[in-house]
Amino acid sequence: MCEHCGCHERTKEITLEHKILSENEAIAESNRAHFKAKGIKAINLISSPGSGKTTLLEATIDALAGEIPMAVIEGDPETERDAERIRQKGIPAVQVTTGGACHLDARTVHRAFHQLEENQFKLLFIENVGNLLCPSAFDLGEDLRVVLVSVPEGSDKPAKYPAAFYRADIFLITKIDLLPYFDFDLEEARRLAQELNPRLKIIPLSAKTGEGMSLWLETLKALASQ
Amino acid sequence: MCEHCGCHERTKEITLEHKILSENEAIAESNRAHFKAKGIKAINLISSPGSGKTTLLEATIDALAGEIPMAVIEGDPETERDAERIRQKGIPAVQVTTGGACHLDARTVHRAFHQLEENQFKLLFIENVGNLLCPSAFDLGEDLRVVLVSVPEGSDKPAKYPAAFYRADIFLITKIDLLPYFDFDLEEARRLAQELNPRLKIIPLSAKTGEGMSLWLETLKALASQ
Repeated sequence: MCEHCGCHERTKEITLEHKILSENEAIAESNRAHFKAKGIKAINLISSPGSGKTTLLEATIDALAGEIPMAVIEGDPETERDAERIRQKGIPAVQVTTGGACHLDARTVHRAFHQLEENQFKLLFIENVGNLLCPSAFDLGEDLRVVLVSVPEGSDKPAKYPAAFYRADIFLITKIDLLPYFDFDLEEARRLAQELNPRLKIIPLSAKTGEGMSLWLETLKALASQ
Repeated sequence: MCEHCGCHERTKEITLEHKILSENEAIAESNRAHFKAKGIKAINLISSPGSGKTTLLEATIDALAGEIPMAVIEGDPETERDAERIRQKGIPAVQVTTGGACHLDARTVHRAFHQLEENQFKLLFIENVGNLLCPSAFDLGEDLRVVLVSVPEGSDKPAKYPAAFYRADIFLITKIDLLPYFDFDLEEARRLAQELNPRLKIIPLSAKTGEGMSLWLETLKALASQ
């Protein structure tokens, strides 16, 4: 047997992973209680980089501003770019730069939430770090988990990255204005995602043309009025 | 101070991270020696899901088959789809499914390499798990590290995901046939990447139309003949 094939270190790593995850769950529950006490609904947005999370938030803010008070926590490995884009819309936003870490966790969100607390808002969008894998394992205390796959990424992604879909509530297929230019099979994406999670609500949309946005916005309005 | 803001667990986590990374480095060096002894050059391909790694490999195989013997290690969280695509081209391929883990490591590559060893080949392509963050931290023993960003992902990605660029040798800007449909600034992408890593070779290309492929293929031929 190859000397490098032992799994001793991997076992230690998994034990620590479980510890980190269970601590995260505890803080996530405390976040959830915190949000509930303040009448805030939190939405965790998970996708690869460039799937259109920030663009979707901009379009969502344009549509709902004045009707529903909102705030945003932006997660990125580096740069303040996304929070700046949101603030230009007149919405309070905190940028979390993870310094390379591949996901937000409940503790980071807890801290960022304290920075937003002086503002009054009803919906809190949490834009996770661009990554279709690691963020799936970390509950942030959200009320709604949204996973996004854009048309250029391909319709096979639910099968290859199932973890993102198991615990999601909504699957947004974004950039559908690009369907004519890509070999993206909308029915395949739907079928693969629903096989993983039959209760998933699937909304194909384009933040650019507005197609499909009404169903997304109605879902948010219903959440805000709960 | 908030009770959740302690960093005790994070310190333990970082210590283990360093241990895992230094062990990975040792196995990566052993892989490198292994490859060198067999006259094999290994290429580690890193990008988000859907940036076109497998499509690029298919086009590369079509162009170089007969001239340079090749093999492929495919990393995905789930499914054998990508290795099947490569095998259909008549090239030996091993699929590594990480079961959700967010990157390949040197040990995994070492094991997969043993499964390929009965074949004769000169270039070994290692398609990493689709993720622009975690794979950057793990040396696999490769001779060439390639980071890919596709036009639909946006030209700001080097600034937001710098770790992928620091240790790369080549930056492929893929799907440039889509430039007319996207707000992707080729000069911005070049500038941001070169600020992070001045020795980076930058090749914009389209595996679909063949534009820019010749420079990529020449680079591989030069590597194979070293």
